[in-house]
Amino acid sequence: MNPDITRERENATFNVEKLTHILDGGIEKTKRRREIESLVISDPDFQSEDLNFLSRSERYDAAVKKSAQMILKLREYGISDPEEIYCYKSVFRGNHHEALGLHFTMFLPTLYTQCNKEQFEKWVPLAESFKALGTYAQTELGHGTHLRGLETTATYDPATQEFVLNSPTITSIKWWPGGLGKTSNHAIVLAQLHTQGKCHGLHAFIVPLRSMNTHIPLPGVVVGDIGPKFGFDEVDNGYLKLENVRIPRDHMLMKYAKVEADGTYVKPPSAKLTYGTMVFIRSMIVGEAGRALAKSCTIAIRYSSVRHQSEIRPGEPEPQIMDYQTQQYKLFPLLATAYAYKFVGQYMNQVYHRITGDISQGDFSELPELHALSAGLKAFTTWTASEGIEVCRMACGGHGYSRCSALPDIYVNFVPTCTYEGENTVMMLQTARFLIKSYRQASAGHQLSGIVSYLNESERRLQPQSVSSRPTVVNVNDLASLVEAYKLRAAKLVELAAKSIQQELQKRVSQEDAWNNSAIDLVRASDAHCHYVVVKLFAAKLGEIGDTGVHSVLSTLALLYALQGIQQHSGDFLQTGLLSVPQLSQVSQRLKELLAQLRPNAVALVDAFDYCDEMLNSVLGRYDGNVYEHMFEWARCSPLNKTEVHESYHKYLKPLQAKL
Amino acid sequence: MNPDITRERENATFNVEKLTHILDGGIEKTKRRREIESLVISDPDFQSEDLNFLSRSERYDAAVKKSAQMILKLREYGISDPEEIYCYKSVFRGNHHEALGLHFTMFLPTLYTQCNKEQFEKWVPLAESFKALGTYAQTELGHGTHLRGLETTATYDPATQEFVLNSPTITSIKWWPGGLGKTSNHAIVLAQLHTQGKCHGLHAFIVPLRSMNTHIPLPGVVVGDIGPKFGFDEVDNGYLKLENVRIPRDHMLMKYAKVEADGTYVKPPSAKLTYGTMVFIRSMIVGEAGRALAKSCTIAIRYSSVRHQSEIRPGEPEPQIMDYQTQQYKLFPLLATAYAYKFVGQYMNQVYHRITGDISQGDFSELPELHALSAGLKAFTTWTASEGIEVCRMACGGHGYSRCSALPDIYVNFVPTCTYEGENTVMMLQTARFLIKSYRQASAGHQLSGIVSYLNESERRLQPQSVSSRPTVVNVNDLASLVEAYKLRAAKLVELAAKSIQQELQKRVSQEDAWNNSAIDLVRASDAHCHYVVVKLFAAKLGEIGDTGVHSVLSTLALLYALQGIQQHSGDFLQTGLLSVPQLSQVSQRLKELLAQLRPNAVALVDAFDYCDEMLNSVLGRYDGNVYEHMFEWARCSPLNKTEVHESYHKYLKPLQAKL
Repeated sequence: MNPDITRERENATFNVEKLTHILDGGIEKTKRRREIESLVISDPDFQSEDLNFLSRSERYDAAVKKSAQMILKLREYGISDPEEIYCYKSVFRGNHHEALGLHFTMFLPTLYTQCNKEQFEKWVPLAESFKALGTYAQTELGHGTHLRGLETTATYDPATQEFVLNSPTITSIKWWPGGLGKTSNHAIVLAQLHTQGKCHGLHAFIVPLRSMNTHIPLPGVVVGDIGPKFGFDEVDNGYLKLENVRIPRDHMLMKYAKVEADGTYVKPPSAKLTYGTMVFIRSMIVGEAGRALAKSCTIAIRYSSVRHQSEIRPGEPEPQIMDYQTQQYKLFPLLATAYAYKFVGQYMNQVYHRITGDISQGDFSELPELHALSAGLKAFTTWTASEGIEVCRMACGGHGYSRCSALPDIYVNFVPTCTYEGENTVMMLQTARFLIKSYRQASAGHQLSGIVSYLNESERRLQPQSVSSRPTVVNVNDLASLVEAYKLRAAKLVELAAKSIQQELQKRVSQEDAWNNSAIDLVRASDAHCHYVVVKLFAAKLGEIGDTGVHSVLSTLALLYALQGIQQHSGDFLQTGLLSVPQLSQVSQRLKELLAQLRPNAVALVDAFDYCDEMLNSVLGRYDGNVYEHMFEWARCSPLNKTEVHESYHKYLKPLQAKL
Repeated sequence: MNPDITRERENATFNVEKLTHILDGGIEKTKRRREIESLVISDPDFQSEDLNFLSRSERYDAAVKKSAQMILKLREYGISDPEEIYCYKSVFRGNHHEALGLHFTMFLPTLYTQCNKEQFEKWVPLAESFKALGTYAQTELGHGTHLRGLETTATYDPATQEFVLNSPTITSIKWWPGGLGKTSNHAIVLAQLHTQGKCHGLHAFIVPLRSMNTHIPLPGVVVGDIGPKFGFDEVDNGYLKLENVRIPRDHMLMKYAKVEADGTYVKPPSAKLTYGTMVFIRSMIVGEAGRALAKSCTIAIRYSSVRHQSEIRPGEPEPQIMDYQTQQYKLFPLLATAYAYKFVGQYMNQVYHRITGDISQGDFSELPELHALSAGLKAFTTWTASEGIEVCRMACGGHGYSRCSALPDIYVNFVPTCTYEGENTVMMLQTARFLIKSYRQASAGHQLSGIVSYLNESERRLQPQSVSSRPTVVNVNDLASLVEAYKLRAAKLVELAAKSIQQELQKRVSQEDAWNNSAIDLVRASDAHCHYVVVKLFAAKLGEIGDTGVHSVLSTLALLYALQGIQQHSGDFLQTGLLSVPQLSQVSQRLKELLAQLRPNAVALVDAFDYCDEMLNSVLGRYDGNVYEHMFEWARCSPLNKTEVHESYHKYLKPLQAKL
């Protein structure tokens, strides 16, 4: 064990294990998680060469192998609870993705929820036994977030009782679905349904892609890998061009909408039913943002405690780089953010399960709010976490660029969450739509409930006034007061966005153009709303914590999180008169004090995330802090070191020397 | 040609070619640049498979091949002017790096400047004929920016008149030098010189690493590749462990310092002489920031003009995504930033050459200012450009993640500039040191000259006052007035940082701790200083432009750049009383107007950068806008598509199905 990191642990002022239990949701959950993790860690089948040393084809191969092994082992161990499966996967995936990911997250769930009884009996056993390996093919080369724009057609032919599927244009080629390129033999294809000469919009069809015996693509199916990407090297994201592919009528998923034998179209009873999965996945991503950032902070903070560099005082030994105020200022607010997002993730999970219960009882009342919240928070947290991962990486100096730090992998495999499951700016505007609607309802005298209830007060309290005439309300040392300030900022920015739309309308532009011409303000309002929600939930979490030591350090983190947000957005708080200039100086001063206060607990706070070395897969983030000897060992395994002299010397350099 | 992009070009209000000439520095330079570029483009030897399809070893191989070819071709064409060589390389490198990069940028220049006459006669011909292939080995596993911390030793043995080189610890292993792993047979090694029982600090030694006949590592030389990284896949960054490696006395570079035969050490005449190269490389990086961002903007803006998505007005066709205000707000300020950095790069280049002239005359007076400016601007521009590249990438939606967009390559190959040639935070603090020193001189009544002369006024004009009592000075529509506001902000923040140090000292902490405890404020002051310099230089550039159309569009860009910076840092401008709250609303409104005003010129403005398709190597950034058919074509070449059925199916999936 590196003596620096040992000393850090000795200096901690709280019980790390207790904080781990809080993060897991209880001592029993921590225990079970560790049991499951140790199944993977001790399993020789999951020991493999660093994926970064392999070619893409080898990486894909290794990922398929791991997925196949996992399926057998989960059965062997009898692990079937989704949370436990997730935990098992988290270890063997490390910082990478699963080759069969979409079979589990999209293909199976869609079958479960959209098959009618006969379809369920046929397809679910095939999918659960992996005879049918599936994916979900929605996005097209020319069409992403805007689903109505999709061009793939499924035209019903009553003569043969078949649908004929086609990709009528280049832009209609299905593009991006994970596992589509090489792995899947089936896809659920989203296509425009045409029957009896009419288009009825998007519906889902089960399309066989490859022979279930030979895996060779079926006639009319042009399928393949879309090529290398930024991250997701292990996954065969694919393309699919359909050329007059005929499937039987019962391959349309018919739990809700139907096409009868003669071609008569029967409408689904409600459109809201498809909301659920989207909301669930976006809520999950919020938790992922917390995890990705927590891993990155673990690596950067542990490394900062063993790395010595430069000097603060002349003549003294080089200090740990964590002693530099600038390093603390980079890392500790991100550490606070990681905690905040982990708690928000827990909250979203709880709300989702509560509301799902309501929905199954036919109560949809909370769904719009959750939909809006999950969209905005997904964007808010993934943007911040992505930037934060890069800050952590660069805080490790040169070595953060080495693949052995794991930070490049964490970044490239996390950052796509900013785009998939709804592009972030579009997500922010969806939340804004809900906020503006709520604001207008409140203005019209309706009493709002739920998270937007603060908009009830806006008309009354937030009259435009100048900075100097407005009494300030904030106590910069009191978290409750800061939550209030975030709330008022959100209210004010929602109001500003609504007024911008109003002003545009007065210029006689259409509603739609007024919306677009106010989009910058709308995104800003959503951002402020999400920021308020996060600060509020972090503060609320503190109320649940009994242990004094843990409560104290988490309170410091929460205060740091809130004050740093104010400093970053100081313009907003000054502009809306919520802070005065002298208070802003207090905020800066207090931030510096909090950094110094957190310094002795930094390593313990990342230890509490409890990511084992096998999950981090980072030489810089090793628990024992013995970084350098392991970097050297790792480097020696680099494929370029397999020969002393690379063949390019004989091919190009030697001849060059001869010619000159 | 895609009709959307044709229409964009027809709508431009200025002459693109004229702007290109300004960027190149004259019509003749544009002509010559294009001539050189066409040499590469038309050369069949430089046509190669997309590097993203190759394994790392293949990529390294391809890069060595290209470098070897380049050397022969430059001789064949008689190209020897450094600017022209740079231009030639820019095309054949594309978005990647050169295998022999450090031979040219560090090994040769060090020989030119630090060899004495005999050494020059021996080593320069060997290096120029590539018999000696060299690199520059400075950083160590445990030591980076802080050079005094380096541990490698060179101990003089008068008995044999040799130096004995050693890596005494794990942390002393040389780590990171480009070309060290496999390519180089020599390295200039920086080591602590020990002679006659005394250490004389860092000196440079020529160390043979590999046999010049067989390329096999010499005895005592443990050398290899440090493994895969984030970017730089083509480069064999290496490690070097020296185990009692003996080199003759005349392998120490002895132009300045010397060790005589008996071991007597002779000091160099001045330490400032090594400043020059560092300053030059940092100045170059500022220009690189402009180029990387300009390429990224070209790709994102062209793609935004041909990509249609979602709807603004119901029932109408999907609009070009560039019509969304949020998209304009992402991209146009970055476009303005790219222009700003290109002009700052031109300026730094001119200043560097002027000051180099002075230095060769023995006049070092301007060197400290240039040193401070190049450090800060290097950090300021590389941070912003790196973030900006990612914003451009994500503005392309899902397709920005595909390696065919080129944006991942641009990012991973540019972002290391934030760390190498001086870690950015350290660079900002170096600039801060100059600013604080200047501020103290001004406070003591000295009259400052040069770029920091604004600090002369600070004591007099910037008395602390509240927001309300201070008259505002800014006209948000007038660039000159905005430059003034940036200047006053910088002055104020330098003053705040100086006061923070003062307050710390009053707590009876040491100078060094006071500095560290004020580091956040110091970085903030440097950032404001650099921002002022950039705005000022952009505004100054407008004065040189005669053409009305070009002047008009560049003025709009400059105003956008200045106003967006104010919006992003609105807290600073409000806090320092330079802007009032109503003015901040005007800034927001004006920004929206400027976005709309730039919209018709966006494609023409990126066309003016004049990056040919071969240099961009981006399917999304194609000049003709025909994106989708070429994406499909590119994807079909993906290595995973070489077989219809990947072997992993037979190895893992088929057996899995059989078992379940």
